[in-house]
Amino acid sequence: MNLLHFTKMHGLGNDFVVIDAIRQRFTPSPELVRWLADRHFGIGCDQLLLVEPPTRPDADFRYRIFNADGGEVAQCGNGARCFARFVVEKGLTSKRRLRVETASGVIEPELREADEVAVDMGVPVLEPARIPFVSDTDAVVQTLEVDGARVELTAVSMGNPHAVLVVVEDVDRAPVAELGAQIERHPRFPERVNVGFMQVLAPDAIRLRVFERGAGETLACGTGACAAVVAGTLRGLLRPPVTVHTRGGRLRIEWAGPGQPVIMIGPARTVFEGVIDLDQPRELPR
Amino acid sequence: MNLLHFTKMHGLGNDFVVIDAIRQRFTPSPELVRWLADRHFGIGCDQLLLVEPPTRPDADFRYRIFNADGGEVAQCGNGARCFARFVVEKGLTSKRRLRVETASGVIEPELREADEVAVDMGVPVLEPARIPFVSDTDAVVQTLEVDGARVELTAVSMGNPHAVLVVVEDVDRAPVAELGAQIERHPRFPERVNVGFMQVLAPDAIRLRVFERGAGETLACGTGACAAVVAGTLRGLLRPPVTVHTRGGRLRIEWAGPGQPVIMIGPARTVFEGVIDLDQPRELPR
Repeated sequence: MNLLHFTKMHGLGNDFVVIDAIRQRFTPSPELVRWLADRHFGIGCDQLLLVEPPTRPDADFRYRIFNADGGEVAQCGNGARCFARFVVEKGLTSKRRLRVETASGVIEPELREADEVAVDMGVPVLEPARIPFVSDTDAVVQTLEVDGARVELTAVSMGNPHAVLVVVEDVDRAPVAELGAQIERHPRFPERVNVGFMQVLAPDAIRLRVFERGAGETLACGTGACAAVVAGTLRGLLRPPVTVHTRGGRLRIEWAGPGQPVIMIGPARTVFEGVIDLDQPRELPR
Repeated sequence: MNLLHFTKMHGLGNDFVVIDAIRQRFTPSPELVRWLADRHFGIGCDQLLLVEPPTRPDADFRYRIFNADGGEVAQCGNGARCFARFVVEKGLTSKRRLRVETASGVIEPELREADEVAVDMGVPVLEPARIPFVSDTDAVVQTLEVDGARVELTAVSMGNPHAVLVVVEDVDRAPVAELGAQIERHPRFPERVNVGFMQVLAPDAIRLRVFERGAGETLACGTGACAAVVAGTLRGLLRPPVTVHTRGGRLRIEWAGPGQPVIMIGPARTVFEGVIDLDQPRELPR
C-alpha cells in the first residue's frame, strides 16, 4: 500500500486533482499522471496540480501543472485559483495573498471573500509578432480569410495566443466547433491559436465561448476571458470591470488598459477528498 | 456538513461511484445523482451503484443502479461484479456467493480468486418477438436492409436487445459509430438495440466493440459480450468458454447452450476512496 491523499477541485468546471507534495512524497511520471487523470480507470481531471516547496527564496510555494496527457505546462488561470484556495484551506499558509512560483514566473493569487480568488494574469501582449500572428499592421481589428470568407478578429496573447471574434447574435448559435477549428490552424497563427466568440451584453458584461487550442470547446477558459475583455476594451465595446458569462460559470475581469496587468476574479471550489493506493495495477484503455 | 463516504470502482473501464446505504443514510434524487455523476463538477461516473438492505427475505442485499442522467435502470453486468467485490471488501458479508435483489430479479454473483467475479447473466432470449425484433423467421442469421445495403446479424436479448454482426477484418476498422447508429434506430428494432461488432480470433476467443443504445461506443459492454458469444455459438463459430477482448479489458463467457444461463467472469477494481460534503453548492454546466 502506497496511499496518496488528494483533493478534487474545480474552477468554472475546469477540474483538477490537487496534491500536497509538501507533506507527502509524490513523483509525477507521465505514465502516473495519465493514469490519475483518466476518468474511467483513475481519478479523472483536466489537469493535475502539484503543491511543492518553493525553489526560490521570494516565493511561498511552487505550483506545477500537468495536463491529462502527462505533459507539464506553464500556466492555468482556473488552476491558480484552486491552488490558492487549497493551500489556505489545508493550513499550509495563513497568508491571503501568496507569491507562487510557476514555470512562467511568480504569480500572486489573492483570496477574497465568498470563495473568490483574484489572480494577476500579467500584461497582455498586442504586437502581432509576439503573439505570434502574421500581419503587416498592428490594427486592433484584423481581417482573416477563412474558406473564402472574411472574418474580423482581434489578436491578443495572455502568455498563450488568442483570436477574439465579436458575434452580434446569440453566442449559443455561433459556429464555435467549425470556425474555431479553422482559425486555430490558420497559417497566419504559426503556433496555432485559441479562438474566443464574444457576445457583448453591455459595456460591463459579455457571454463567451472559447475553442481551446488542441482541446476544442471547453466549459470556461480563464486566459480566453482575459483576452476577450482586452479585445473588447480596445475596440471600444467594453469598460472594465467586466463580468464574463461562460458555460461553466462567471468570472470578473479588471483591466486598466495597455501596459497594465489583467486581474481575473473567480470561484475555486473544493468538491471532495480522496485517498488512492498507488501500488494498485494501473490500467488504461487500449 | 453532510459527509458521504463513497468508493470509486470500475469493471473494464465502465466506472462506478459505489455508496454503502446500509451504514449511512443516502436518498438518491435525480438531481443529486446527476451532480455526483458529473465528471467536472461532481465525482464522475457512468453509473452510481447503491448498496441497500434487501426488501425480500431470500436476498442478502438490494442493488440499485442509477445512470448519469439520474434515471434508475434494472441491470448492469460490470456493475454487478463491482457490487459483489464492494460488499465483501467492506466486510458487509463473509459470503463469497451472494443473493442480490435487483429491479429485474435476484442475481447471484460469486467472488473468485484474483479479483475476478462471476455473474449469472440469465438465459438469453432468442425469439424475435421477445427481443423485440420484427421478423417472420427465427433463423439465427437474419438480414437487415440498411441504407440500401444488406447487413447480416443475429438478434439476442440478454434482458436488453442486441444485434451481433461478424466482421471478417480487423474490428478496429469496423464502422461502429456510423453503422451502429443506423442499426440502433432501425424500425425493425422497435425498442432500439445495442449493436455488437465481433471479430472471431479462434473458437474460444473474440474481439468485440459495442455501440450501446443511447450511449454510443463504450469501453466494454457486459451484456454485449454475452450476446456476442451466444450469437457466435449458435452460428457454429465459437465453442464456450470464450475470452472476449474489449477496449476496456478481458471477460470470460461460459454458456452451455439454448435454455441455459450465460455466466460472465471478469475483473472488478477498486480505484479510490472518497468523502464528499453533500451540503456544498451543487453546480452543473449550463
